[in-house]
Amino acid sequence: MTAITLPIAVTAEDVDDAARAAHQAFLHVAAEAPSVRANRLTAVAAALRANADELVELGQADTHLAPTRLHGELKRTAFQLDLFAEEVLTGIPFDATIDHADADWGMGPRPDIRRVNVPLGVVGVFGASNFPFAFSVIGGDSASALAAGCSVLHKIHGGHRTLAVRTAEIVTEALRESGAPDHLFAVIEGRSAAEALVDHPLVKAIGFTGSTAGGRALFNRASARPEPIPFYGELGSINPVFVLPHAWENRSQAILAGYAASFTAGMGQFCTKPGVLFVPDTYSEEDLRSVLEPELGQVALSELLTPGLRESFGQARDEAVAQEGVTALIPGSDDQIPAPTILLTDSIVVEANSDVLHLEMFGPATIVVRYQQPEELPGLAACMGGQLTASIHADDTDDAASLIEAVTGIAGRVLWNGWPTGVTVSYAQQHGGPYPATTSHTTSVGTAAIGRFTRPVAYQDLPDRELPVPLQEANPWNVARRVDGDVVVPSQTGSVDR
Amino acid sequence: MTAITLPIAVTAEDVDDAARAAHQAFLHVAAEAPSVRANRLTAVAAALRANADELVELGQADTHLAPTRLHGELKRTAFQLDLFAEEVLTGIPFDATIDHADADWGMGPRPDIRRVNVPLGVVGVFGASNFPFAFSVIGGDSASALAAGCSVLHKIHGGHRTLAVRTAEIVTEALRESGAPDHLFAVIEGRSAAEALVDHPLVKAIGFTGSTAGGRALFNRASARPEPIPFYGELGSINPVFVLPHAWENRSQAILAGYAASFTAGMGQFCTKPGVLFVPDTYSEEDLRSVLEPELGQVALSELLTPGLRESFGQARDEAVAQEGVTALIPGSDDQIPAPTILLTDSIVVEANSDVLHLEMFGPATIVVRYQQPEELPGLAACMGGQLTASIHADDTDDAASLIEAVTGIAGRVLWNGWPTGVTVSYAQQHGGPYPATTSHTTSVGTAAIGRFTRPVAYQDLPDRELPVPLQEANPWNVARRVDGDVVVPSQTGSVDR
Repeated sequence: MTAITLPIAVTAEDVDDAARAAHQAFLHVAAEAPSVRANRLTAVAAALRANADELVELGQADTHLAPTRLHGELKRTAFQLDLFAEEVLTGIPFDATIDHADADWGMGPRPDIRRVNVPLGVVGVFGASNFPFAFSVIGGDSASALAAGCSVLHKIHGGHRTLAVRTAEIVTEALRESGAPDHLFAVIEGRSAAEALVDHPLVKAIGFTGSTAGGRALFNRASARPEPIPFYGELGSINPVFVLPHAWENRSQAILAGYAASFTAGMGQFCTKPGVLFVPDTYSEEDLRSVLEPELGQVALSELLTPGLRESFGQARDEAVAQEGVTALIPGSDDQIPAPTILLTDSIVVEANSDVLHLEMFGPATIVVRYQQPEELPGLAACMGGQLTASIHADDTDDAASLIEAVTGIAGRVLWNGWPTGVTVSYAQQHGGPYPATTSHTTSVGTAAIGRFTRPVAYQDLPDRELPVPLQEANPWNVARRVDGDVVVPSQTGSVDR
Repeated sequence: MTAITLPIAVTAEDVDDAARAAHQAFLHVAAEAPSVRANRLTAVAAALRANADELVELGQADTHLAPTRLHGELKRTAFQLDLFAEEVLTGIPFDATIDHADADWGMGPRPDIRRVNVPLGVVGVFGASNFPFAFSVIGGDSASALAAGCSVLHKIHGGHRTLAVRTAEIVTEALRESGAPDHLFAVIEGRSAAEALVDHPLVKAIGFTGSTAGGRALFNRASARPEPIPFYGELGSINPVFVLPHAWENRSQAILAGYAASFTAGMGQFCTKPGVLFVPDTYSEEDLRSVLEPELGQVALSELLTPGLRESFGQARDEAVAQEGVTALIPGSDDQIPAPTILLTDSIVVEANSDVLHLEMFGPATIVVRYQQPEELPGLAACMGGQLTASIHADDTDDAASLIEAVTGIAGRVLWNGWPTGVTVSYAQQHGGPYPATTSHTTSVGTAAIGRFTRPVAYQDLPDRELPVPLQEANPWNVARRVDGDVVVPSQTGSVDR
């Protein structure tokens, strides 16, 4: 691949130019055929794979993450683009809905009305620190915005700048080679550019993954614009894990081993890290330590993503351990490569001071809460804020019904006998939960993420030739549609009786 | 029906009590079977119909709207409840999505993941002044929230208080008789109750129809909460109508007649009133007046909804006519029953001062803009803010493609040779457009409105017995689902090869 000079917008004026150019590119692609859009996504996926070794090497230098992890993340990121290409081809993101005119409609004669999702326009995407591929330059937000038919202005995360710039070059080149209009994808950098991005009238939505404080500030900014825009922010999550008595009785050691591996994955820098483990109070401190310490001894440790993150992690952990009734079961360390920390408390403490359940420690630290009765658990769940995930470890003889109901009320994904780290990209995935986990009720992972960057438009009594293609009677793109209330699957079109 | 004493929350403390009680009711109904929920909606519809004469009489006294219009609106409101009941029975609002475990999934082994929409909780609904049935006590927002499985706290609009209280009594009684839990639906009144409603931690979404100023203030309030909540507000819309040259040449008189009838419907108090008509400049002032005046002479006039509205209408109209380059083609009057007003300007004026296109006059007033070339129209459309609707009058020989593209960019519904007043309730309807038309990209009319009051939750590896019913393998409720990427329609379940 030939070297290109990547323009990076850093001033408000740069961002204005970039937004105008991106808007023109958006107008060019907004109504294109699914096959054109799908080919573009797969071209980018192929370019990522073709440059995997170089990108992983850059990522390793920038982030201290292991090559295996980075190769897996790149594979996932490319797979996501391919899956979104397939999804675009099904036409499902159009949500095409056709109501033929009906003189006998119950409230009075109905005109012909047809609705389709259209892309929003220019989308601003903020790269995350912790997933330099999957939630960064061409991660879930960028991929779903492009799949929706939007253009993208990506704000580079300074924690992996070298990798981000090189990735953006590869994406830009792949888009150009696949025939995309110029400026469909571009990058910006720095705080003033970021603020200008959120403020720009031509920017119609924001995708963000990051801290609760930073995300909330940008959410407030997006909401305060003269024209408020949707801000799809993933801010923070504790990801509670609840172990029921029979599961604990039958396999406590395996559960603790899984816990140790999960909360240290990626050095605890996963948004789905299990930050709280609720277990019965049958184990003493010494019992817990004797199982957990050897497990932690097997974990491959590395530096945290950035020096700033190491500092804020240490502060959050120290603040947690200073809470009354919280002890350091395994204290960890403040080394450049920090040893993991496990704190310990009990349900009486957190029932008196639920703040203990709201301390996000972004890094390898977590807290074990011993409870007396499983009947306490639904109430403990209900007093936690919104979560990306909640996990339940239970055996067939455990009664989990009321706990499932309680965690459904606070979480976007509920796991059974599993660990929340690792988020598959699929049709049913939901990565997003009540605030502060996310600022909206949408998902940033999986095919449903595409819908975030569209809005519905209905067409009343338009001649067939003037309609957007997904709404034309003959269904030239062969997309799934709802017609007069019935779901019509493309392969079955023509055989449906109506 | 027996008389009941309707409790009305007026203080912040009342609202706190009401929200807690409504939350308990929500927990009771959140996971109920579609048939139970559907029966409840149809019971309310039947009660509205059974009390139609009394309600229309009260509505007429409160609003000055004609009995025929009010009977039609009540019919529509009851129909909407019945249609939503049918929609609940299809299971489509669950958006049930099942990904079976897949060891060969492209990014690595996939667990079993199943996603379903769950109701949000307590929903606050603000009644609108202009549709005392369809956008009020048990209008679109309340109906869709109940259909979603939420409980409702409705803020009574003071403009039709007597009707609202009586409607709420009938709704409450019908819900009770159909076996609903107490407090599933309740009403509040007054400004401090309204603010307490938007602020209450147990209130999880707001539906609002009203003014841009009032709606924006409440949107800001909802967005500034510690836990921001979605605010589905319909604020204001000009609803431009564009007449292309051949249509104008062939049927200008019919178009002007339709325009006169549409902008005066309900005394101009429709959110979809055509507030601007763009026509070729082939007609002189006198030509226009000679056609429009007799048409207006046929309109049945009445008082505006409230004295306050009459005052604000007069101010908005006077402000519009004071703009440079704007003349009063037909001046109207300031009588208690105001005669309609038609203003006139041309495209050169609005191209120099686009403020003229942003003046919402809520009442029987509108503005005609004469243009020179149809090529001006896409640019004129693009400089208007977000709209509920945009209408195009065109003949087969008119070239409308670029105008359709432009209005798609600003409107939620695009009409062809039709008038925007009158919004059918159906599957494909979209009542909502870019800001300020609405504060979100959703619809407040039609079956798609139900989804606003749900959020997705995914379940990973749960045993079948622990899953929400729509996700259980046997599909006991026989709902439409997406399975491993394929859309599976209930009647076809079992015959689908997978």
